[in-house]
Amino acid sequence: MKAPERSIELTQVTEWEDGSVRSLQDFLAAEEPLEIRVGGLPLTVTMRTPGHDLELAAGFLLTEGIILSQDQVSSLRAATTENGTKSNRVEIELQGTDFDPAQLQRNFFAPSSCGVCGKASINAVRVRGLRQPDREFRLDPEILCRLPEALRSEQAVFSRTGGLHAAALFDATGKLIALREDIGRHNAVDKIAGWALLNGQLPLSRHVMLVSGRGGFEIAQKALAMGVPILASISAPSSLAVKLARELGLTLVGFLRGRRFIVYSCEFRCLPT
Amino acid sequence: MKAPERSIELTQVTEWEDGSVRSLQDFLAAEEPLEIRVGGLPLTVTMRTPGHDLELAAGFLLTEGIILSQDQVSSLRAATTENGTKSNRVEIELQGTDFDPAQLQRNFFAPSSCGVCGKASINAVRVRGLRQPDREFRLDPEILCRLPEALRSEQAVFSRTGGLHAAALFDATGKLIALREDIGRHNAVDKIAGWALLNGQLPLSRHVMLVSGRGGFEIAQKALAMGVPILASISAPSSLAVKLARELGLTLVGFLRGRRFIVYSCEFRCLPT
Repeated sequence: MKAPERSIELTQVTEWEDGSVRSLQDFLAAEEPLEIRVGGLPLTVTMRTPGHDLELAAGFLLTEGIILSQDQVSSLRAATTENGTKSNRVEIELQGTDFDPAQLQRNFFAPSSCGVCGKASINAVRVRGLRQPDREFRLDPEILCRLPEALRSEQAVFSRTGGLHAAALFDATGKLIALREDIGRHNAVDKIAGWALLNGQLPLSRHVMLVSGRGGFEIAQKALAMGVPILASISAPSSLAVKLARELGLTLVGFLRGRRFIVYSCEFRCLPT
Repeated sequence: MKAPERSIELTQVTEWEDGSVRSLQDFLAAEEPLEIRVGGLPLTVTMRTPGHDLELAAGFLLTEGIILSQDQVSSLRAATTENGTKSNRVEIELQGTDFDPAQLQRNFFAPSSCGVCGKASINAVRVRGLRQPDREFRLDPEILCRLPEALRSEQAVFSRTGGLHAAALFDATGKLIALREDIGRHNAVDKIAGWALLNGQLPLSRHVMLVSGRGGFEIAQKALAMGVPILASISAPSSLAVKLARELGLTLVGFLRGRRFIVYSCEFRCLPT
């Protein structure tokens, strides 16, 4: 199948493989916020890959139980910007439903960890308190390569269920400092953040954090909130995570598998210069 | 490391391997909602694996930018039930911060796809409009085994970026009907739901949905909102997804890899009786 427009971005990255370093171009999965409006009022914002936005908005209403059938959607359109290009907003009008967005005066915080609900622009999704990580910290690439195996061998719940995400902190010698597991990727990282906070370890300026899932925008943001200088994952980061990491000086490592990894930003911390 | 109490649940499942069927006991990663209260007011609810709840709550406040340091937490405790056991609630008191939970009168919907924010009990997390799936639908296990390869070969964005989740619909002959990709697991499923809604295909009573990630509670709930009778994933489901699937009659398949899979509920749809 053909990839939808705007779903992929090209960027310059650095590859380390078995001691050799080379620069190459790499494709990133695009990540951008989409705001869904119902009856002119903002309903939610989700971090998504552009493409099939109308389906996403309609499907969200269905699977959240707001609508039950197609005939309740009287109008569905992608908002356009002044110059006629598609914006990151879908506008929906409903009929024959008792759902009233104006009644949604809920006393709840909208966490960035759940798709930045309620935050309408990329600048607004940035939380307070992000730290510029330590620029002196260095990590030997040989040590970096050993971290996934160290993480896996210590995952207690995963080894019995095969179903958990993990986040782990290591020091510059590769020693495991803390490991937490959770069904939610964001929760595993928040447990690490809470461990650090409650044990007086903040900022985590001499540590690398390894996560079992992808390195998306929200995970990168959480790493920056803790002051972690290197965030590594076994899988791919998103376009927005790379953008944030470059802006704030976080070293973002992806595809950390065997004796190979890709560095997306601030490679000086883990590659010979 | 030792797994925290309540983080694992044991259940009876059925394994299909190369044509042989056997019953066995399997461990599931536990999934339960945790409510975080600040100053007596509900701040959020997240679907999490029990264990390290205080760290999770404190870490959430830090990485969301609500607090910046430990001394802003004046009190942090796990609420207990009447008989003295731990409940699914953490209560926090803050000091020296301008954060006021009473000011959080936001006009936003709290989607189940982001950790059921604002929904305080398991019953409350259930959305409206869940359908009891068709009980007549059958799928040959040999066809089921071929679906992951069919999904992977069609993933356009994944194949170039390595970074996307996918959800796909197949019919009983194994023919691919629709495939959507997204950086968010829930979004990929919502795009499928929207495709079905906008094309008059609901309920999807003659289809199997395959997802690239885990089969958690929210994904199972979305499948039920579409009327899908079989939900399959390459990875493990959570305890709560299995509970919901058994209650509403959804066939939940996990660890679908090569010529082997595990069925967690309603095995009559895909196993010989």
